Amino acid sequence: MQLTSPGTTVGVVGGGQLGRMLGEAAAPLGIELVVSDPTPAAPASVVAREQVVGAFDDEATIRELGERADYLTFEIELADPDALERVSEETATPVHPHPDTLRIIQDKLVQKRRLREAGVPVPAFRPVDSAADLRDALDELGYPAMLKAREGGYDGRGNIPVERPEDVESAFEAIDGPAMVEEFVDFERELAVMGCLGEGEVETFPVTETVHEAEILRRTVSPPRTSSDVRERASAVALDVLSVMEGRGVYGIELFETTAGEILFNEVAPRPHNSGHWTIEGCYTSQFEQHLRAVTGLPLGTTERRCPTASANILGDVDRRQPARLKGVESVLETKRCALHWYGKREVYHLRKMGHVTLPGETVEDSLETLDDVVEDLTFVSTSTE
Amino acid sequence: MQLTSPGTTVGVVGGGQLGRMLGEAAAPLGIELVVSDPTPAAPASVVAREQVVGAFDDEATIRELGERADYLTFEIELADPDALERVSEETATPVHPHPDTLRIIQDKLVQKRRLREAGVPVPAFRPVDSAADLRDALDELGYPAMLKAREGGYDGRGNIPVERPEDVESAFEAIDGPAMVEEFVDFERELAVMGCLGEGEVETFPVTETVHEAEILRRTVSPPRTSSDVRERASAVALDVLSVMEGRGVYGIELFETTAGEILFNEVAPRPHNSGHWTIEGCYTSQFEQHLRAVTGLPLGTTERRCPTASANILGDVDRRQPARLKGVESVLETKRCALHWYGKREVYHLRKMGHVTLPGETVEDSLETLDDVVEDLTFVSTSTE
Repeated sequence: MQLTSPGTTVGVVGGGQLGRMLGEAAAPLGIELVVSDPTPAAPASVVAREQVVGAFDDEATIRELGERADYLTFEIELADPDALERVSEETATPVHPHPDTLRIIQDKLVQKRRLREAGVPVPAFRPVDSAADLRDALDELGYPAMLKAREGGYDGRGNIPVERPEDVESAFEAIDGPAMVEEFVDFERELAVMGCLGEGEVETFPVTETVHEAEILRRTVSPPRTSSDVRERASAVALDVLSVMEGRGVYGIELFETTAGEILFNEVAPRPHNSGHWTIEGCYTSQFEQHLRAVTGLPLGTTERRCPTASANILGDVDRRQPARLKGVESVLETKRCALHWYGKREVYHLRKMGHVTLPGETVEDSLETLDDVVEDLTFVSTSTE
Repeated sequence: MQLTSPGTTVGVVGGGQLGRMLGEAAAPLGIELVVSDPTPAAPASVVAREQVVGAFDDEATIRELGERADYLTFEIELADPDALERVSEETATPVHPHPDTLRIIQDKLVQKRRLREAGVPVPAFRPVDSAADLRDALDELGYPAMLKAREGGYDGRGNIPVERPEDVESAFEAIDGPAMVEEFVDFERELAVMGCLGEGEVETFPVTETVHEAEILRRTVSPPRTSSDVRERASAVALDVLSVMEGRGVYGIELFETTAGEILFNEVAPRPHNSGHWTIEGCYTSQFEQHLRAVTGLPLGTTERRCPTASANILGDVDRRQPARLKGVESVLETKRCALHWYGKREVYHLRKMGHVTLPGETVEDSLETLDDVVEDLTFVSTSTE
């Protein structure tokens, strides 16, 4: 293994905040990024060597990445697996994780089926292609339940709760395409594990508690406020999930801890994940460094936690899409040990992920209390009345 | 205070490793860098929004920075203070630290005189403009002593030891210009303090021990292996040094702990410094983030140390200038908690600073032992026989 200059180049499909944090982690390792994103001057562009402007699934764009890079990866599931596979072959540029993993994951029904086959505990679910299917499925699973579009959903988009039989028609109409329905999981808390597949290595970061509201992540808490037995079982389930994944990289694995104390798989993302942002300050190796090590075939770093660490997302609190101007940042910068991560998005809209704040501390309870105060002071300047 | 996108832009004269580590620290704060450096594709360029190619003291280059940036700073003392001051006025771009600080620091004789006037303890020294001056000075100060060029020296260049009266002529010839001579300091160890001047704030990072060989930094050790009384006195001297500095930013302050237990000032650099690289992993706020906070007028971060931390420089071990290819990097990446920082320089030469490795640990003694093993495995592929 040799370090050179210019260094190993990684082509990343997607130039959002995940690409930006990959770029921050790349330079110390002697790795340079080329990213692709449809938005010019995307968040990652300031820390990438260059940005190719083009859609996530555009083969010509992916080919440009492949021609300029030594390895290909993606930070968004909208990357096209067929295009990635063809470009990887044509340009002799390895792609990680494997496009087959994307194929499994992009379709939530296929994902759940494959993981159930591998022995991973999942909530009961049924395929749904019509309102009639949905009604039949719910006769078995019972109400309430969650209807999910099979493809394209994120941050809760494409997920429709079905509370009562009267909701069936309107719920299916809202999706109006291939879907699946899942039993309502009565959970005590949500957990997440960042897993990593290296070259002949499998590692997991410490289990983390995730707190969502309206299906959007608000807080991460590591260690989670649960028993060590639950944590151990969550890590074991994560390893089972990883056994189904193909190709090197980090994987964000979301789990439920049910009120009955059971661990159920929710979903997996084959990339760095919001639930792992705390590792930048909270671990010796961040999920972003780990992903780059994995993709380029370097040895994985330790996944050990440095100290109890909590994080809070900075979300758009405005009604309509507008230029992003965040007030109240003093509260973050003046709070001892608080780390700011601004994503550099030009525009803010309702609940858009604009940044996050991490607080390593003595206890997660203290960190959460401080984060609540700090985040409360953050607000986007609204131009809606201008 | 508002965060926007695109964010506050800092123009940095110099695009070497210090600029690169500033770039790594900038993005999370929503700060973007524009750097200038005479070498195209300089180390900082991959993490900067753009690089202007031009000499450090070229006014047109500095003006380009001033026109594109909201604040100006420098990561190398070769920046021209007159040009910085003019450009700052013409483009209404504040420059930090103040060019007057550069004027004081660039001339080692002026630097020592100003600090002595401020009550900072310094070794005895005399100005030297000829071999005769040097001989007269050493009649008073005694042999051995250190002859130093007043301007332009770094990493030991421009420093000539004068062991005996017979060396006087050849030593002065080697400098052949305005110089100063300083009594030989019989030191127990060398110490360094990163100081920071913010907007109405003065802070110091924890005192660090620095280990030099042939006047080039090899290791940093924090906390230093000395008494708490010595550490406190070193911090107090650092605060006195800061009282002479003008303008916001971080300052690398190098000190001697003499065999008599006295603290003597050695020199100060008005920028992030090699003795503070350990703060990236070893503190909650790195010296690079702190410099950016200071320059842009944001509140300073805590300077608290997270844990005992040591670092080792990766230096060129080849005889002649050649493309940089470093072998043995597995040893760093496989060592638990070890953090690699590669500077991305295209060429290596004898003792050039090419990167560093940091190891946060339980004790600095353990970290140093591990670092010695790790660094021993690193070697540049020599092309001298090709």
